[in-house]
Amino acid sequence: MTKKLILDLDTGIDDTLATAYALGSPEVELIGITGTYGNVLLDQGVRNALAVTDLFGHPEVKVYKGLPHASTKDSFEVQPVSAFIHGKNGIGDVEIPDSNREPETESAVDFIIDAVKTYGKDLVYVPTGPMTNIAAALAKAPEIKDEIGKIVLMGGALTVCGNVSAWSEANISQDPDAANALFRSGAPATMIGLDVTLQTLLTYKETQRWRDLGTPAGRFLADMTDYYIKAYETTSPHLGGCGLHDPLAAGVAVDPSLVTTLDINMQVDVDGPTRGRTIGDNERLNDPVKTMKVAVGVDVPRFLDEFMTRITGLTKA
Amino acid sequence: MTKKLILDLDTGIDDTLATAYALGSPEVELIGITGTYGNVLLDQGVRNALAVTDLFGHPEVKVYKGLPHASTKDSFEVQPVSAFIHGKNGIGDVEIPDSNREPETESAVDFIIDAVKTYGKDLVYVPTGPMTNIAAALAKAPEIKDEIGKIVLMGGALTVCGNVSAWSEANISQDPDAANALFRSGAPATMIGLDVTLQTLLTYKETQRWRDLGTPAGRFLADMTDYYIKAYETTSPHLGGCGLHDPLAAGVAVDPSLVTTLDINMQVDVDGPTRGRTIGDNERLNDPVKTMKVAVGVDVPRFLDEFMTRITGLTKA
Repeated sequence: MTKKLILDLDTGIDDTLATAYALGSPEVELIGITGTYGNVLLDQGVRNALAVTDLFGHPEVKVYKGLPHASTKDSFEVQPVSAFIHGKNGIGDVEIPDSNREPETESAVDFIIDAVKTYGKDLVYVPTGPMTNIAAALAKAPEIKDEIGKIVLMGGALTVCGNVSAWSEANISQDPDAANALFRSGAPATMIGLDVTLQTLLTYKETQRWRDLGTPAGRFLADMTDYYIKAYETTSPHLGGCGLHDPLAAGVAVDPSLVTTLDINMQVDVDGPTRGRTIGDNERLNDPVKTMKVAVGVDVPRFLDEFMTRITGLTKA
Repeated sequence: MTKKLILDLDTGIDDTLATAYALGSPEVELIGITGTYGNVLLDQGVRNALAVTDLFGHPEVKVYKGLPHASTKDSFEVQPVSAFIHGKNGIGDVEIPDSNREPETESAVDFIIDAVKTYGKDLVYVPTGPMTNIAAALAKAPEIKDEIGKIVLMGGALTVCGNVSAWSEANISQDPDAANALFRSGAPATMIGLDVTLQTLLTYKETQRWRDLGTPAGRFLADMTDYYIKAYETTSPHLGGCGLHDPLAAGVAVDPSLVTTLDINMQVDVDGPTRGRTIGDNERLNDPVKTMKVAVGVDVPRFLDEFMTRITGLTKA
């Protein structure tokens, strides 16, 4: 059976690339996108998810509205650095037509639970923003932790420094309590953190290949991603490219062998000065059952090859 | 050629166990102990190192005095928690005779440099306290980083929380700047941190086997280690034993296959609230040359078996 995929996105430039990766992967069926906040406000992300799936020729992908802010907060505002990296509209300030579709009326949380009930072990859920929606789903239906196939999340930093502080990565820092609830739930989660995503870099050379395709989707991806690479020149000049954070999570959801992982029981620090840090849970260090995997190595050339092949294939049409 | 070993110790209960492990290992020759501060004051540690090598029947092991405090400080005082864990005299408040030997007149720092010049790649240096001595040796003779065989250090915590704070391990926290100098030097270092040492636990069952040997060394080890296990019952009741920190570093110096490691370029945070944290160096994340290995897994049954066999063999005589 084809694996069923749900992407949970704060769409976002690299979220859009993750969407393209999933749609370009015949091994999986993207059964829905659940919207979250982070790179953009919830409504902007949902708008973008509808628009880019249309542009990629996949209007059958349903989009669900998730929760608009962290479980411990009353509201959410986009941070200036997010707008700097993703553009005010989240997709590099490139203009593409609004979809004439609307998001589904079912909530993201209920859709996640229903999808687990329907597809069970064949379902892979890929959150690439805050873990607010999945934490809410686990709170409402705790049994799904044993029923779901796998969760492949982009977030955290175990063996490297964070990107919003020395110890905290952006997605986790938006809602550390939700991430901690997921990490300690026992759900089978693979963490794709900065440890590996900062190794997978894209440059203008690759985006030019999309532009050269001469299609609207190719031009859009090239222009949008160039905005992202340019932002990285300011925020992380030593890298020499932009990090393919969310696409790597999508890539691992399709093919886990792209990364090497460490079996470990994880937590998120929710108290004290290191709030938002992803780290092993010392109290479960000697528990022989390890519920999570953390990616600590990545086959960079193979991933970049898969990334270009799949996305170029999708946007050629 | 037999591997030459230098132990750099703040002797200490688990330092004493590491000494016994090294002396019970025919694959290595313990050519010297360099003294440092930490569990005890420098002078107490040097006194203990002389006394325990005598008791173990190895008065040929020379002991060198190292630096008495961190590179950034003027003095050192033993922390109350160290005295609680190791006893006021560092060896569980068990009385053993003073050695009639004196420490060597050559400084620990010069001895380390000379030993590298003499033995080169056959030398393994094992610091199990602060990294003050090796950092001073690297500052005085930077070329030894390329000439030494290997450094196997006990210290740090990469994938788990620290033990003096949520982010810092005791040895590293004593002199974060020295540890950072070592980590960023390019020297071939293997970090044996809390990630693995808190998995290797000893209980009263094993110490009773030493007591049953009926030898002075066996009784000493049993009484001393029982003090340590008892302290752990207060400080880390969830573990169900005491962590074999320093002996695991000695074990890996003898046989690297006891642990699985991650190749990584490391740093120690020296600024900001996470001062003393051991973490990957993001600026060298994509450098294909990785100068350090961090142990992230350990073959617990095999190590415990080697540990008991070697130390029991030594103390039987």
